Amino acid sequence: MKIYSKIFCPTVLCALLYIPSVSHSQNIQASVNNIDYPKGLTNWRVISTSIRSDNNTQRVILGNSIAIKAARANSDKLHWPKGAILAKLVWKNDTLATWKAATVPGDFVHAEIMLRDARKYATTGGWGFARWSGLDLKPHSQDSNAAETCFACHQAAKGTDYVFTVPAKLP
Amino acid sequence: MKIYSKIFCPTVLCALLYIPSVSHSQNIQASVNNIDYPKGLTNWRVISTSIRSDNNTQRVILGNSIAIKAARANSDKLHWPKGAILAKLVWKNDTLATWKAATVPGDFVHAEIMLRDARKYATTGGWGFARWSGLDLKPHSQDSNAAETCFACHQAAKGTDYVFTVPAKLP
Repeated sequence: MKIYSKIFCPTVLCALLYIPSVSHSQNIQASVNNIDYPKGLTNWRVISTSIRSDNNTQRVILGNSIAIKAARANSDKLHWPKGAILAKLVWKNDTLATWKAATVPGDFVHAEIMLRDARKYATTGGWGFARWSGLDLKPHSQDSNAAETCFACHQAAKGTDYVFTVPAKLP
Repeated sequence: MKIYSKIFCPTVLCALLYIPSVSHSQNIQASVNNIDYPKGLTNWRVISTSIRSDNNTQRVILGNSIAIKAARANSDKLHWPKGAILAKLVWKNDTLATWKAATVPGDFVHAEIMLRDARKYATTGGWGFARWSGLDLKPHSQDSNAAETCFACHQAAKGTDYVFTVPAKLP
């Protein structure tokens, strides 16, 4: 019984301690180009927001700690170092019931990230692109060229390291 | 010399350790109704976003840890407990140079908060309202009735505890 307790208690303790860290992100499939959905993404800090009239969506742009440090450095030339991740949470536009002039997040569309690694992702501007659709975060595409499709669009932002996002001015 | 070292070293150490915690928020004047600007507000997690066509602004709505816990509880009835703070960072709308269909944050307008305390702020729906204007976060008003002005507008959201913000659906 004593031996049982010695084995059982640490096991239960470990299990209890472990449960909170088993987020659903562990069940989220990596993108086709083998990028993992970043754990705890929805807890990241804000870089900016945007609303797009061409696809009726709005989004918040978050960053991991490396990206936040870069975005908030107030340097003349913004530099995204290796490991920086920019994440967009995107919603369909909806009208706020209590304030008709306000457009607010409706259905969740997708989460998408850009992961900085100049060597690993040299063919796509030094960024790994990945997207997960819907609240259950299914990898957006099984097409192995999905990242190239992202990159093609991001050519428009070539002058800013293929990043559309300009960090919002913060107090 | 030894005594000098004993006094000097801890002093220097304390000073070095202290510097990062002296954020500019310590120089920010409290609102006219004596609400302090919350330290570290720009590091808070996201509750939602919105864009307003009636005043050409967009904003991100953040929450302190109490508010985030409430917003993400997925309960049938959203309850904002005592101490919950909702914060809005508001920018003028601007067009993104690299994607004309995207409206993004331009000039920073103000930071504003709603602080939950049903007893303390009973006359304004159980919320303390405060706003700081511009990147230097000057208290928005010296009018002691400023919170009543906020509250008058928030009557439109009476059915949701005077809160316009509906937490965005998160994955």
